[in-house]
Amino acid sequence: MKITEPSHGLVDVSGFECAGVACDIRGKQDGRLDVALVRSKFPCQWAGVFTRHAFAAAPVLLGREQLATGNSIEGIVVNSGNANACCGEAGMADALAMRKTAADVMGLVPEAVAIGSTGRIGERLPLQNLLSGIREAAGKLSRAPASGLAAADAILTSDTRRKVVTVELRLDGVPVRIAGMAKGAGMIEPNMATMLAYIATDAAIPSSLLQKLLVEAVQGTFNAITVDGDRSTNDTVLLLANGCSGVSLQKNSPGLGEFASALGHVCGGLAEAIVGDGEKITKVVTIEVSGVRDAASAERVARVVGNSLLVKSSWYGNDPNWGRVLDAVGASDVEFEPKRFSMSYLCPDGREVPAFAEGRGFPEKKEAMRSIVANSRFTIRLNLGEGEGRFRLLASDLTEGYVNFNKSE
Amino acid sequence: MKITEPSHGLVDVSGFECAGVACDIRGKQDGRLDVALVRSKFPCQWAGVFTRHAFAAAPVLLGREQLATGNSIEGIVVNSGNANACCGEAGMADALAMRKTAADVMGLVPEAVAIGSTGRIGERLPLQNLLSGIREAAGKLSRAPASGLAAADAILTSDTRRKVVTVELRLDGVPVRIAGMAKGAGMIEPNMATMLAYIATDAAIPSSLLQKLLVEAVQGTFNAITVDGDRSTNDTVLLLANGCSGVSLQKNSPGLGEFASALGHVCGGLAEAIVGDGEKITKVVTIEVSGVRDAASAERVARVVGNSLLVKSSWYGNDPNWGRVLDAVGASDVEFEPKRFSMSYLCPDGREVPAFAEGRGFPEKKEAMRSIVANSRFTIRLNLGEGEGRFRLLASDLTEGYVNFNKSE
Repeated sequence: MKITEPSHGLVDVSGFECAGVACDIRGKQDGRLDVALVRSKFPCQWAGVFTRHAFAAAPVLLGREQLATGNSIEGIVVNSGNANACCGEAGMADALAMRKTAADVMGLVPEAVAIGSTGRIGERLPLQNLLSGIREAAGKLSRAPASGLAAADAILTSDTRRKVVTVELRLDGVPVRIAGMAKGAGMIEPNMATMLAYIATDAAIPSSLLQKLLVEAVQGTFNAITVDGDRSTNDTVLLLANGCSGVSLQKNSPGLGEFASALGHVCGGLAEAIVGDGEKITKVVTIEVSGVRDAASAERVARVVGNSLLVKSSWYGNDPNWGRVLDAVGASDVEFEPKRFSMSYLCPDGREVPAFAEGRGFPEKKEAMRSIVANSRFTIRLNLGEGEGRFRLLASDLTEGYVNFNKSE
Repeated sequence: MKITEPSHGLVDVSGFECAGVACDIRGKQDGRLDVALVRSKFPCQWAGVFTRHAFAAAPVLLGREQLATGNSIEGIVVNSGNANACCGEAGMADALAMRKTAADVMGLVPEAVAIGSTGRIGERLPLQNLLSGIREAAGKLSRAPASGLAAADAILTSDTRRKVVTVELRLDGVPVRIAGMAKGAGMIEPNMATMLAYIATDAAIPSSLLQKLLVEAVQGTFNAITVDGDRSTNDTVLLLANGCSGVSLQKNSPGLGEFASALGHVCGGLAEAIVGDGEKITKVVTIEVSGVRDAASAERVARVVGNSLLVKSSWYGNDPNWGRVLDAVGASDVEFEPKRFSMSYLCPDGREVPAFAEGRGFPEKKEAMRSIVANSRFTIRLNLGEGEGRFRLLASDLTEGYVNFNKSE
C-alpha cells in the first residue's frame, strides 16, 4: 500500500466525479462552498455506518432505509450549514426534495442517490438555495483535482482544514485505490459524533462484504476518537465501490487483508485529521488502556479519561497532572486492584516515563513528565493489571478557545 | 422547621465545639486555615457516605472501616491542601498518625476520631506541620461562633465561599438542631465528587437509622449535582448525633418525617452552595427529567445533558441552544420515541417557554428562551413521554475561566 500525496479526495479513484459549489445555505452571502456532489460512472455497491442518536436526522433515516434495500447507488449529495435535524415531517419532505433534485440533475432515480446534511439543528433547510446549488453543481461535475477538493471543502463546518486521504494498493498487479473525504470539528465522540465521511474505491466488492469491512474499519478509527464527548444527529460514514479498477474482491480473496488494512489506513487518517482539527484544540493525546477484563471496560476507562474536563484542561496547560488521570480512571466504575495499576507517559520518540505503580505515584518524575506533556502529540499508557482487554482512544485537550467558540452559535 | 441565619456551622448544635487553625499544609506560608477540629461533649452515633472511587484515599479507607465497627465517635479532624490519596502504605501510616495525634490532644481513643483530607493527590502529607496544627487546634476548641466558622473555612480548597447551613425544628415542643459545613468547588459530580460535608445534630438517633436517613438525604442532594463530571478519591459526608437536646428518635417516632425533611434541607442547602460556588461558574441550571422508564435512566439523561461541554458552553454564552440539549438527550442511549419528547425552559418566576414538542423545535421562541437563559438560575424541563421515572440534577455552566483555572495546578 502506498499513500498518494497530495490527495484530491474522491476524484483520485477511477470513475468518480465531484463538484462543490456555494449556494448560501448559511444566509451569510459569504460565497462559502456548501453543497458537494459525487457521481460514479457505474452503479456502486455500498456500505454505511450511521449515528445511533435518538434524534437521527432526516438524511440519516433516509440513508438507513436505502441501505437496507440492498440497491446500488451512483451519486451522493451533501450540504453543510444546516443539519436538517429535528424538523419533523417537514424535514423529511425537504430531504426527499433534495434527493429528488440531485437524482434528476444527474439522470438517476432518487433511490440511487445518498444524501447527507451537517450544521445547525432544528431549523428548516433553505430549500430554494439548496436546490439551485445542486443544479449548479451538476454542471460542474468533473474528475479534475480541483473538483475533488471543492467537494471536500463543501462538507466542512467549523473545521479549519480540509480532510482527504488517498491510498493505492496492488492486487494481482493491478492498482486499486481508496480515497476518502471527511468533516469533523465539534461534537466529536464515539459512535459517529458530528462527523461525515465519504470513502470511494474502484475495487468491486459485494455489499455484504463491504459492510463488514466498513464496520471493522470504523471501530478502531472513527469510533475511537473524542474531542468533547458529544455526538450528533447526523453522523454518517459511507463506502462506495464502483469496480472501475477491474479488480474484484470476495470473502476468500487473498488480497482482502491488504484491502482491509488500506481501508483502515484511510479511516484512521481521516479520524486523526478530525481530532487534530478539533475545535480550538492544541494537542492530540493517545490513551492506550490495557490489562482490563474486557475491551468494553477498557474503552470505558479510556473515554472517562479522554472526556474528563480536569484532565483535558491540564493537558492544555502542559501540566502532567497524573493525579487527575488516576482520579478519572478510578471514577470509571471499572473494577480493578489499585496496587496492580500502572501508568506512564510516552513521547512520540518512544521515551517512557512512569507516573504510578505499586500503589504510589512518582512526583519526583514530574519534570520528565512535563517535558512529554509539552508536546503537541503524546501518549498516556494505563495498565489495570486485570486481563487482556485493551482500547486505544485519540483525545484532544480542552482550551479556553473551545468554550469561547461554543458559548454562542 | 426554621432556617437559622446566619449559620455558624457545627457550633450551632448543642454539645459541639470547633476550631480551625493554619499550619501551612500547602507550604506557601500564607496563613490560610487548613486544619479543622470538631469535638462533641458526648459520644455520637454516626453515619457516613463515602466515595466509591477505586483509588479511595487513606482517610476514606479508614473511615469505612471505622463506621463498620458500629462504635461511636466523639471527634473529627480534617485538613485541606493535601488529599493524602495515592500515597500507598506511607499514606495510611500518615492517616493513622493524624488520627492518633487528634485523639491524644482531645483525650480520646483513636477509634473515636474520624479523619478527612482534601486537596492535592499523590503527594505525602507534610506531617510535622499537620500534627503541630492539630495540637494548636485542640487548645482553641470552643462553642464560639468564630470557632464554628474557622472550622468551616479550614476545610475549603478552591472554594470562594464558606458553606454552612443550620436549621432548627421542634419535636414534642423541644428544639432540635441540625447544622452542616461542606467544601466543594472542583471535581464535582455524582457519588460524592471532591466534596466533604460534616453534619451534626443534637437529637439522639441509633446509628442504623441515622445511616438510612443520611443515605436518603444524600441521594437527591449531594448525589444530584455536577460541575465538571469528575469525582474524587476523598468524598465523604458524615452525620453525627450526640443526643444533647434530650430528644430521641426511633424508627417509628412521629417526628421522624420532620427530621428527615430538615436533614434534607441541610444537605440540599450545602449541595446547592457547592454547585453555586463551582470553579469559575456563572450559572446554576436545574435539569428536571421526567417521563422516563425508570429513575436510573432519567438520571442518565440529566447527567448527559448536565455534563455536555457544548450545552454548558452555550449556557455560559446566554445562548438558548436547545438543539445541543436535544443532541445530548439523544446521545444518552436511553430509548424513547422522539415524537413524544418535549422540552421547555423555565424562569425562576415560573414562566415557561416551550422549545420542542411533537417532533419539532420552536425557533420562533428563541428570544423568549434567551431571556430565560440570561438568568443566573433557570430550569430546563425534559419529558421523554415514556414512563414514571424522574430525576432532578443541579448543573453549572462551563466557562473559559474554568479551563484557565485548571490548566495547571
